[in-house]
Amino acid sequence: MAQRGRLYGIGVGPGDPELLTLKALRLIKAAPVVAYFAAKGKKGNAFGIIEAHLSDVQQRLPLIYPVTTEAVEPPLSYESLIADFYDASAISIAELLEAGRDVAVICEGDPLFYGSYMYLHDRLAARFDAEVVPGVCSMLGSTAVLGVPLVYRNQSLSVLSGVLPEDELRRRLADADAAVVMKLGRNFDKVRRVLDELGLAERALYVERATMANQRIVPLTEVDPMASPYFSLLVVPGEKWQA
Amino acid sequence: MAQRGRLYGIGVGPGDPELLTLKALRLIKAAPVVAYFAAKGKKGNAFGIIEAHLSDVQQRLPLIYPVTTEAVEPPLSYESLIADFYDASAISIAELLEAGRDVAVICEGDPLFYGSYMYLHDRLAARFDAEVVPGVCSMLGSTAVLGVPLVYRNQSLSVLSGVLPEDELRRRLADADAAVVMKLGRNFDKVRRVLDELGLAERALYVERATMANQRIVPLTEVDPMASPYFSLLVVPGEKWQA
Ligand SMILES: C[S@@+](CC[C@H](N)C(=O)[O-])C[C@H]1O[C@@H](n2cnc3c(N)ncnc32)[C@H](O)[C@@H]1O
Ligand SMILES: C[S@@+](CC[C@H](N)C(=O)[O-])C[C@H]1O[C@@H](n2cnc3c(N)ncnc32)[C@H](O)[C@@H]1O
Repeated sequence: MAQRGRLYGIGVGPGDPELLTLKALRLIKAAPVVAYFAAKGKKGNAFGIIEAHLSDVQQRLPLIYPVTTEAVEPPLSYESLIADFYDASAISIAELLEAGRDVAVICEGDPLFYGSYMYLHDRLAARFDAEVVPGVCSMLGSTAVLGVPLVYRNQSLSVLSGVLPEDELRRRLADADAAVVMKLGRNFDKVRRVLDELGLAERALYVERATMANQRIVPLTEVDPMASPYFSLLVVPGEKWQA
Repeated sequence: MAQRGRLYGIGVGPGDPELLTLKALRLIKAAPVVAYFAAKGKKGNAFGIIEAHLSDVQQRLPLIYPVTTEAVEPPLSYESLIADFYDASAISIAELLEAGRDVAVICEGDPLFYGSYMYLHDRLAARFDAEVVPGVCSMLGSTAVLGVPLVYRNQSLSVLSGVLPEDELRRRLADADAAVVMKLGRNFDKVRRVLDELGLAERALYVERATMANQRIVPLTEVDPMASPYFSLLVVPGEKWQA
């Protein structure tokens, strides 16, 4: 019987292709199959980061999201559509692994930090050899380009999703020494309101597409809440220690 | 007048030399001066990661911590000893920058995520050009080797220091969807007690020196609290979403 393939979950960093690790580069170049998530009609952010390193003989396996927003018309539900999608993606990959091919799933930032790879890992890692290659996450790509220390010494850091209800955001931000709010986009206005209420707006820093070619750093007050892209986040750095 | 040098704060990842980014490698090779923190009599972890890439003509600038623990005999205080040390380190680096030499400060993991580089950045970035190169942090190096998704979808992640008082650890861990506890070492016993009390011990995973040659993954119950090293951390992964 042919040996089964190995699954790799590979972080490719926040956008700048130079933020790929040596290990990610080696494994991506060696992978017979490179799988990646993308929205319909788009190339996929992770794929764009590594595309230049691929050769023509490597098989591409695009996994195209069935929906781009969580707002889905009933009787359909986002949860079930997306679960079916991950099931189907896992089945395609399992076929390749069974056939003895290694599959590298590339992932923006780090694969296990809010990454879609996690849903494949949960479906496949019990049955197949799986190795995760960590990457530079968007949170740290963002603090680097903002040039701001994130969290000092024994401070607590809270990483939050902008999708959270306003009350929970308020409660969690009020209790954090340092915080990062991911998934802004259409949640931006709500998040800014909470920061204003808590007196944290002055301390907060905002960045779009950190480390990408079209990166933008904008003061919080100047962000157009209707135009905040999906690839944006907010940082509330910890208070300086011994500045 | 000669042009002033540029300061780089460069993350070198959690331990495996292959987890260096392409950008870090390029800048480290090009740096006329490579500065790094180390304990007395030790080579320094970050330096060990990149040493093989240096040539003889590059100047090494070791910055040796004056103390290895925060327990200092009065009338001395840890805070003032360490502040003096960062002041002196910043002065040495400033001299080199004034003289027109670029200085790369290498840093284990990511420079702005609990890294010592932050204290140099706070002292120098207003006066000199400074660029931060993000790295793979130990938190994500650890989840990768543990093979466990850290945080799903809209879950909140709390990153905590094991140095925190027991009450605060308990309160923050009780409120977290997912958590990472850094700086274990002699705090291990306290942290494990809190996890036990909260019923989180079963979910928690422990790793020493993740991605390093002497990495060790041990069940929580089998960790000797007297022997937990400084380079260890605990992960309480978020509950699986759509497993
Ligand atoms: C599904 S999460 C994926 C996170 C990714 N796995 C990581 O490690 O950074 C998507 C969110 O990450 C953040 N994000 C990803 N890349 C970013 C970038 N280059 N700049 C700013 N935010 C980014 C945004 O907040 C976005 O909504
Ligand atoms: C001063 S912080 C530095 C963190 C570093 N800047 C980073 O980005 O990971 C030191 C703490 O990081 C954690 N740590 C660093 N490297 C580690 C590794 N390879 N494995 C496990 N924990 C590590 C330990 O909890 C240690 O006490």
